[in-house]
Parts: sequence; structure tokens; C-alpha cells
Amino acid sequence: MTTKQRFGAGIWHFATYVDRYATDGYGPPRSLLEMIDLAGQVDDLSVVDINFPFPGGTVSLAEIDAALARNKLSVIGITPEIYTRQFAKGAFTNPDPGIRRLANDLCNEAAQVVRHFGADYVKLWPGQDGWDYPFQVDHKALWTHSIEGVAELAAQNPDLKFVIEYKPREPRVHMSYDSVARTLLGIERMGVPNVGILLDFGHALYGGESPADAAQLAIDHGRLFGMDVNDNMRGWDDDMIAGSVHPIELFEFFWTLRKNGWEGVWQLDQFPFREDCVAAANSAIGFLKRIEAALDRLDVEALRAAQARQDAVEALNLARKALFGD
Amino acid sequence: MTTKQRFGAGIWHFATYVDRYATDGYGPPRSLLEMIDLAGQVDDLSVVDINFPFPGGTVSLAEIDAALARNKLSVIGITPEIYTRQFAKGAFTNPDPGIRRLANDLCNEAAQVVRHFGADYVKLWPGQDGWDYPFQVDHKALWTHSIEGVAELAAQNPDLKFVIEYKPREPRVHMSYDSVARTLLGIERMGVPNVGILLDFGHALYGGESPADAAQLAIDHGRLFGMDVNDNMRGWDDDMIAGSVHPIELFEFFWTLRKNGWEGVWQLDQFPFREDCVAAANSAIGFLKRIEAALDRLDVEALRAAQARQDAVEALNLARKALFGD
Amino acid sequence: MTTKQRFGAGIWHFATYVDRYATDGYGPPRSLLEMIDLAGQVDDLSVVDINFPFPGGTVSLAEIDAALARNKLSVIGITPEIYTRQFAKGAFTNPDPGIRRLANDLCNEAAQVVRHFGADYVKLWPGQDGWDYPFQVDHKALWTHSIEGVAELAAQNPDLKFVIEYKPREPRVHMSYDSVARTLLGIERMGVPNVGILLDFGHALYGGESPADAAQLAIDHGRLFGMDVNDNMRGWDDDMIAGSVHPIELFEFFWTLRKNGWEGVWQLDQFPFREDCVAAANSAIGFLKRIEAALDRLDVEALRAAQARQDAVEALNLARKALFGD
Amino acid sequence: MTTKQRFGAGIWHFATYVDRYATDGYGPPRSLLEMIDLAGQVDDLSVVDINFPFPGGTVSLAEIDAALARNKLSVIGITPEIYTRQFAKGAFTNPDPGIRRLANDLCNEAAQVVRHFGADYVKLWPGQDGWDYPFQVDHKALWTHSIEGVAELAAQNPDLKFVIEYKPREPRVHMSYDSVARTLLGIERMGVPNVGILLDFGHALYGGESPADAAQLAIDHGRLFGMDVNDNMRGWDDDMIAGSVHPIELFEFFWTLRKNGWEGVWQLDQFPFREDCVAAANSAIGFLKRIEAALDRLDVEALRAAQARQDAVEALNLARKALFGD
Repeated sequence: MTTKQRFGAGIWHFATYVDRYATDGYGPPRSLLEMIDLAGQVDDLSVVDINFPFPGGTVSLAEIDAALARNKLSVIGITPEIYTRQFAKGAFTNPDPGIRRLANDLCNEAAQVVRHFGADYVKLWPGQDGWDYPFQVDHKALWTHSIEGVAELAAQNPDLKFVIEYKPREPRVHMSYDSVARTLLGIERMGVPNVGILLDFGHALYGGESPADAAQLAIDHGRLFGMDVNDNMRGWDDDMIAGSVHPIELFEFFWTLRKNGWEGVWQLDQFPFREDCVAAANSAIGFLKRIEAALDRLDVEALRAAQARQDAVEALNLARKALFGD
Repeated sequence: MTTKQRFGAGIWHFATYVDRYATDGYGPPRSLLEMIDLAGQVDDLSVVDINFPFPGGTVSLAEIDAALARNKLSVIGITPEIYTRQFAKGAFTNPDPGIRRLANDLCNEAAQVVRHFGADYVKLWPGQDGWDYPFQVDHKALWTHSIEGVAELAAQNPDLKFVIEYKPREPRVHMSYDSVARTLLGIERMGVPNVGILLDFGHALYGGESPADAAQLAIDHGRLFGMDVNDNMRGWDDDMIAGSVHPIELFEFFWTLRKNGWEGVWQLDQFPFREDCVAAANSAIGFLKRIEAALDRLDVEALRAAQARQDAVEALNLARKALFGD
Repeated sequence: MTTKQRFGAGIWHFATYVDRYATDGYGPPRSLLEMIDLAGQVDDLSVVDINFPFPGGTVSLAEIDAALARNKLSVIGITPEIYTRQFAKGAFTNPDPGIRRLANDLCNEAAQVVRHFGADYVKLWPGQDGWDYPFQVDHKALWTHSIEGVAELAAQNPDLKFVIEYKPREPRVHMSYDSVARTLLGIERMGVPNVGILLDFGHALYGGESPADAAQLAIDHGRLFGMDVNDNMRGWDDDMIAGSVHPIELFEFFWTLRKNGWEGVWQLDQFPFREDCVAAANSAIGFLKRIEAALDRLDVEALRAAQARQDAVEALNLARKALFGD
Repeated sequence: MTTKQRFGAGIWHFATYVDRYATDGYGPPRSLLEMIDLAGQVDDLSVVDINFPFPGGTVSLAEIDAALARNKLSVIGITPEIYTRQFAKGAFTNPDPGIRRLANDLCNEAAQVVRHFGADYVKLWPGQDGWDYPFQVDHKALWTHSIEGVAELAAQNPDLKFVIEYKPREPRVHMSYDSVARTLLGIERMGVPNVGILLDFGHALYGGESPADAAQLAIDHGRLFGMDVNDNMRGWDDDMIAGSVHPIELFEFFWTLRKNGWEGVWQLDQFPFREDCVAAANSAIGFLKRIEAALDRLDVEALRAAQARQDAVEALNLARKALFGD
């Protein structure tokens, strides 16, 4: 199918991974340039999100620029790694003010890299900010740090956008920015224009949200700055291939974007631990194109009428008809 | 143990129940006066929350007053039943404006009953407001109705308080007011002083929240107007006896209330389907008194120091020492 | 589409429901004959499973026979209601031996009704057999009663089949027959030929099973005597329209049946609380026909090759191609 | 408190960890000898379970013997690492027969190490045996491999015991040996005397089992060969400090062991990612000693009477009284 849509991916889609069991990794380590060259093999990929410090060993900006150019890729965002060993007890919420300062420094460096690439945003995913045990933290202090840490960055870099990617949990048992509503509450308290949400479909799903509803809420608050998709079994952030488990809710999510005129990049945040990463990306994007075509086929007028009655059966039938073809 | 704390319960604690299988009920129906007399048998109960229209058949206000008086009980809140058949597709969010009007009428009647009893609030639990299926609703319209419906009530009754009891789901697959943060977002948009949250410990728990963190957030927004407790298996609103599964998180919840100087009633929202309702209430309140004593025993200074380091082991040891006695 | 497949439904699909909140029911009560006439309006329904005692008030076998005949329906199974008030603390596992005897009596009466209709089986769904609280039961005694209760029925009725419909929970917090493996373990201990499993797709799903894997296991033990489908959000038995949330796993489930040559009826176990029941059944069966056609389209050879390599991406692509059409 | 009970731990309790985010680890790597010396610092630890190949770099058996001796520790089991990179697609169920052979070889080597230490068993935790995606595997073939792989080991080593530690998921989205009942079904099909279950309290909990019920079932099948404890939030294998979240179910679990006369070692399987590992072990064992004392205090006669009536409130009150002290 032909497509007008631009697609993207986190560059880690093309990395290899470790976990607490396969400590030797699910494959040999890859350099960032190798990852970019793999990303270039995907059929319709335009942009990537890159971790910082750059993963996979020393590399220069010029080398990255060249690799991106030869693969016709550009950079949409930079993700500072505020979740490695030194941040094990938190970045913005670390009990040690020195570590909180390091987190701020690293994000400011990432901001410089955003400027270099002309990217859209610094992506903040404070995965170690939160708690594990009952009684472990002073919840008021923790949430205050969560808000102030991001607000400070936004004030330091008024020319840039910052996006918060909320997530219910992992690696902490509970993450501070755990849901769309909590994150919006925090952003409202910051009171700055340049902080928004990057909505991860899978995070919404396993957090018990409707991803479509979460997207609508973020849009209504003027804060949906980015998004990515994947899939899971609703109990964990499995980062599986988009559409492999929940194709209908994925369709509803994209319908919500379209009806609001949201026109950003459709990104992937997948972790193909045991799969060929290029094949996994192609499989996902192939399905996203089906969704794009289904959006054109959807009988919008009939759907709006069904929704006005909250008629689940008719709405489902209309969605199915558009998505599954004949 | 002696206690300074006041305890309360939803009057439905003393009802019998039906579900979709035991359609003949888990026991013979009870009148409201019978329920009140059962409530009076509980060792340390001071207040009750009563459904409206009054459950269990026709009864006069004078009869209720008398029953309350003979059992030394007063009324803390009135819960309008905006979740029965006519509201099966929603109260504030019903697609039919006529039904939305009925919901408003019923809540205004409940407000009159609050005034009669000198109670603290009208409790809103819009359990049918939400959705079941992907594509069923226009999420923006639904959320707008959720907010406007409550805001209208608050404006109509500026002399009263309204509390929203959020809950992730049941009976709808997804409830509109699903979490503490979402509810606070909605309340902020209402911009009125007389709407707050009634925080149900079990709803927070099975919604993936830390109840202590949820309480802190509501307090920090000045919106914790009430609370009740129970327990569950973290996957459903089991409404089991408080402390029967999660005693440590229950203790942390009450510690959060105490350290913020929150001094309201400790209420029960339990559904003893197959248990003796008086025994179930006594079991819960007995454990709440243990928690009250443990709060006195807790080494607050050491706990604050451990939390300042986010030292989970030490904090846990301190909590255990206070809660489990010697 | 034309179909060779026979479809069925639990007659409760056409009832109205109560729950603990909408105690006045989601609609006016219906008689069994009304339910049968509604079932007859579904496009391709051949068989029904009927509760016993017959729901919806007094009715004669002759009246039921006539209603079935005029709607071209036959009976596949009878479900004794061993989960109403008298069985609130269990049927086979009730602490009171007198109630256990009543459960046995009721199931034997149901067996007579099976014979009357020439149905396939007595369906046992002991939804009240289990526990709610830690420490509530002696687990060894409970499991022994679970097994002996069914084994006794099988011995009393060697000419009939009994199917156990396992389910993780609801209305008990934990059901005794909670999973496919547990149920098979119990059946093996019974050592009788006429007890098998009725596998409910949704129960497998929200119990954390792969329904396809559960079906394969039951088939390999020679015990898959029946099945029904629906859908849910993986956390509760929502009994939603089949395929509305998990179409791909539904497809894998039916692929498993086909590759094993399992040729029984495809049944629905849906609870359309707020939906038109005929429309909900038609929506589900419409999708099941799509699956039937997709099974014909599936490139079986390529799929087997992909599975031999455990190649998730290729297997998913093949499944998608067959299910979503062009 | 004094204790008669012997306590143990997986040696990985004293390791440092990596995950997919903190790829540089939650602390500097430790050698096995360092881990053993840390284990020796725990107040009441008698035995350890050791991974094989030995973690943390090259080490000789003699060095390990010496380290164990100086710390007064012995070895209860050896855990072959059949879940590292080469086994990423499975050990016993790997699609490649050459890898399946490697898994068998490694387990046989582990058996030799068990003999060296005079340990009790080879512990099999085939964490990579399972699947991630719908349609990925042929479930019949996968389960057959799961059974045959373990049965072969048991036949090759009739002088030794093998224990299977089942777990619902992680690192695979679904593990083949996922529950107590499934594992018992598999063991029954093996038909060998020297394969049993190592029951992990947390795995039972987040798999939706009652750990007490799971223990009873394994005991009744004569297959409870070992156990370990920890805690979690019921949605993931958090491997938190035992008793930190679910003290009452932990108590019920140990009550079940005691009433069946099960007298093995009480082991820990905790992962203190961000905690001091010695403090975390002491915290857990301290609580286990409280449970040991509570078992002595429990009014067994009254409890049995309450359970005979399935009286949840009375049983809970008795358990609380014993566990929480005065």
C-alpha cells in the first residue's frame, strides 16, 4: 500500500537487550551506527529517537549524521538515559541532591544534542523515579521533586520541547509519572508551555487506560506532543509488535488522533528480544498502513451516530468492517 | 483497646446482596431499619452513609431518625443511587439528556436529605458512567458530561459538599472517574470549592495506585473530603474485610492521613456477601484500632530519616515493629 | 458468507441481568420462552444451553419443546444452577453435607432433563465452590469435595457426559476448578470416562492462559467436550462480544480446534448487559464466520514451518494475512 | 527470637543485577566468593542455592568449599543457567535440537556439582521455555518437549532429585511450566519418582494461585520437594522482601507446611535491586521467625473448627491474633 504517513522508531528497536536472567544479552552488542543501518533497512521509516549518551560505544556526531543521511533518516527526539546505575534510586527524585543535579546536567546535554539534530524534543522517561515498597518514600516530597525536576529543565531550555513518557511501573515497582492524568496534573502545576506528553500505547494499555481516551485527554489539554505504539498482554510492558494482540484498540487510538487532526509521526517502541528487528518493524508498519487505509474506509458519519447513542454493537461492527476489509 | 477515633460504615455493609449468578440474593432482603439496627450492634460505630432512595422498601424520615437515635448513630453522607436500571447507560454521561436530568434531580433530592440529617456530603459514585467497548463512546463528550454533571450540582447546592468516589471499573468495564489523578483533573476544571474526593482504599489498590500516595495527592490539592477502607486481591473490588490481605499498605495509608493532620471518620465499605455483617465490621474495626495504636508506637523520627534516604528495608522494619507489636 | 459450522449460545445470552448495584436489573425479567424466541431471531443459531431450574418462571417441558421447534433450535446442554442462594457457600464443597446432597440432587434432575432433550451433557459450573479469604478453608478437604462431587455424578449417570467449566474466580474470590490444568488433574483423579472440560475462551484468557494452549492440553488428554467464546479485558470475566478485543488469539484458538479435527459446536457465552442481545449475537457470529473463512485461507504449510522455527513474526504475518483479508 | 528452623537463600540474593534499562547494572559485579561471604553475614542462614556455571567469573570447587565452610553454609541445590543467551529461544523446548542437547548437557554437569556438594537437588527453572506471541508455537510440541526434557534428565540421574520451579511468565511472555497444576500434570506424565516441585511463594501469588492451596496440592501429590519465599504486587515477579506486602497469606502458606509435617528449609528468593542485600535478608528472616512463633501461638483447634464451617471472619481473627501478637 502507498502511504502519506511518516513512521518512526526508537533506535533501541535495533539494539540487543539484556535482562536479569540473560545477563549475557539476547545477542551481541551493537554500535549506534549498526543500529541506524538496520533502521535504514526498514521499508518506511523516516525518523528515529536516539538515546543519550549514545549507546554502543564511542561515536561522533559527524558519524551519526553520515549514518542517518545514508539511511534517509532524521532525528525526532533524544532520550537521555536517566535510568542507568547512577540513577538507580531515581533521577529527578533521587534522595541525593548531587544525583538530581547529574540528571539535570545530562538532560541539558541531551538538549544540546536535540539542537544539533534539529529534533523535536527531549524525551524524559524517568523510569527509576518512584518507589518499590510501602513506607519507602515521602510521597509529597517525591511528587514535588518529579514536578520541579522537569519544570527546571523547561525553564532552562525555553526554545525546546520536553515530553514526558509516563508508565505505570518497571523498573521501579511504581513510577512517579504513572498515568496520563497524573502527568497532566503535574504539567499543569509546572505552568510552562514547553512540556507535554509522549503517549506510549502499551503503557496506557497495561496501566488500565483506554489508549484512545488517554490520547483525547492529552489533546484536550493541549499536551499531546508525541506518541509511540507497541503491544502487550495488559499486565506488563511487553513491547511486542504493534497490533499483534490489540488491533481494535490500536485502530481506535489512531481514529482518535485523526479526528482531532493530530498529524505527528507514528512511532514504534518495540523490543524484539528474540526476533529479527527489521522484520518486526516491517510487520508493525505493515499493520499501521492497514490502519491508515481503514481510517479512510471508516464510515465516520455512522460511527458518530452510533457513539452519540453509545451503541457498542453498531460501533464495533463499523470498526470491524473498516479494519478487516472484505 | 480504647480509641479516640470515630468509625463509620456504608449502610449497605448491613444489607444482603445479589449478583448475576445468585439472582435470588445471598440472603433475604432487609429493610433500612433492620440495617440500622444491625449497624448499632457493631462495637464502635458512630456514623453511617445511607443510599437514596432509601433501600429496602418505604420508610419515613422520622422512622430513620428514631432508628439512628436508638443505635447512637448519625449520618455522614447520602449516596444517591445513580446506578440502577434507568441509569444503566450512565447518569451524568447518559446519551439521553432526559436521563441526565433525572440524575441531576435525584442528586438534588439527595442534597435535601443531607440537609435533613445534617450530614457532611452527597456522595457521588457514578458507577455506570463510562464505557464497555472500544469505539463505543466519544471520549471527549463523555468526559465533558462527567465534569459538567458534577459542576452543575455543586453550583445548585453551594451550601453542601459533594464527594466523588472514583473507581477503575465495575459495573462498567471502564469508569469515567477512574483514578485519583483523573478525578482531581476534573475537579480542577470545575473550579468550585465544594467538590472533593472520597478515597476508597480498595479502589486505589486495584487501580494500581498506592493508596497512601493517592491520599497525599488528594490532600495536597485540598480535596480529600472523605475516605473508606476494605481490602481486595488487587484485581477487582472485592470489598473484603479491611486489613485481611494488605495490612501494611493499610497502615501506610493511615500514617499518611495522620501526618497530614487529616482527622475525619474512618469508614468501612465492605460487602460481606457470605459473612455475618456485624462480625465482619467488628473484625475490621478491631484491626483499625490496632493500626491506631501502631501509629502511636511508630518511631516517626526514624521513619522520616529512612524515607529521606528512600531506605526501604529500614522503613519496612520500622513499620513492622509498630504494627506487629512484640 | 455461507457456513458449514454450527453455532450455539447459552440461553442466558437472551436474559436480562442483575448485579450488586443495578439490583432492579438491566431490563425487565424475561421468561424462558421469550429468551428462546429471541435466540430464534439470531441469524445462524442452532443450539442452546439452558439453565435448570428453568429461568424466568414456571414453564413446562412441552412448552419449551414447542418454542425450540418453532425457532429451529435444539439443546446442547443443561446447566444446573448450583450457584444460587442456597449454594452461596458452595455446592460440591459446601461445608454442610445436606447442601452437598441438594447439589447432587439438582444435578441428577438436570441429567433427567438432558435425557429429555437428547442433549450432549450436563454442564457443571460450580461458581460458589472455592474461597474468599486467606485461612478460610482447608484446601485439601475442599479439593477432595470438588473431585468427589463430580465423580459421584459421573458414576450415577454413566450414560451421560458431564462437562466442567472452569473459571479463575467470580462470584468467589477464588474458584476451586480454576484452570485447565487443575481441572484435568482433578478429572484424572476421578478416573471416569464421562467427565470432560467445557473450555470458555474468556475464562482461559483472564486466567492468564493462552486459550489455544489450553484447548490443546484438554484435547491431548481426551477431555475437550465443549467450548464457548466471548471476550474480556484480561482482568475479569466481562463476557463481551467475541472478537471485540482479542481477535487474533480467538483465531489461534479456532485454528487449534481445526488442526486437531475437533468438530463440535461453536458456542457463545456473552452477557450483553446494556446491548441488544440479538445484535450482540449476530455481531459475534458474523465475526466467527470471518474466522471460519480465514481458517480456509490460512497458509497452513507456511505456518507449520514458521512454528517449527518458533518464528513469531512470520507466524503473525501469516495469521494476519488470513484474518484481515486484503 | 530463637529458632529451630533452618533458613536458606538463592546465592543470587547477594549478586548485583542488570535489566533492560540499567544495562550497566545496579552495582558492580560480584564474584561468587564475595556473594558467599555476604551470605555469611546474614544472621541465620544455613544453606544456599548456587547457579551453574558459577556466576561472577572463574572459581574452583575448592575455593567455593572453603568459602562455604568459613561462612558455615552448605548447598541445598544447584540451578543450571538454562536461560542465558544461547537458550534465548528455550532450553528443553528450543526449536533447535542442538540447543536442546546443550541444555541437557548443562543440567547433567549441574548434577555432578550437586553430587560434589552433597546437595539436595538440581533446580530447573526453564524461564525461556514458552512463547511470546499468538501463533508462535505448536503448543502440543512445546509441551511434549517440556516434559521429555525433564524426564530424560531424571532417567539419566536416578540417584538425584530434580525440582521444577514453575512461574507464570518472565522472561518469556508465557512460560511452559506456568502453574502448580500444570507442572504436576507434566510430572505425572513423566512417571518418575525423582522429579518434584520447588514452589516459589511469589510465583504462585502473581499467577493467581493461593500459595497455601498450591502447596497443599503439591504435597498431596507427593511432589513438594522445595520452596522459597519473597513478595510482590500480584502482577509481576517483583522478588521483594518476604512479608512486605502479603504477610497473612505468607503465614497461611507456612501453616499449610506445618500442618502437613513438611520440614524442609525455608528459603529466600529475593532480588534486592536497590537495597543492601544483607539487610534485606535479615528483614525477611526476622519476619519468618515471627511467623514461626505465630505458628506456635495459633489456636489450631479453633482454626480447624472455623475452617470446617468455612467461617472466614473467625479464621481471619484467629490468624491475626497469632500473627500480630498483643
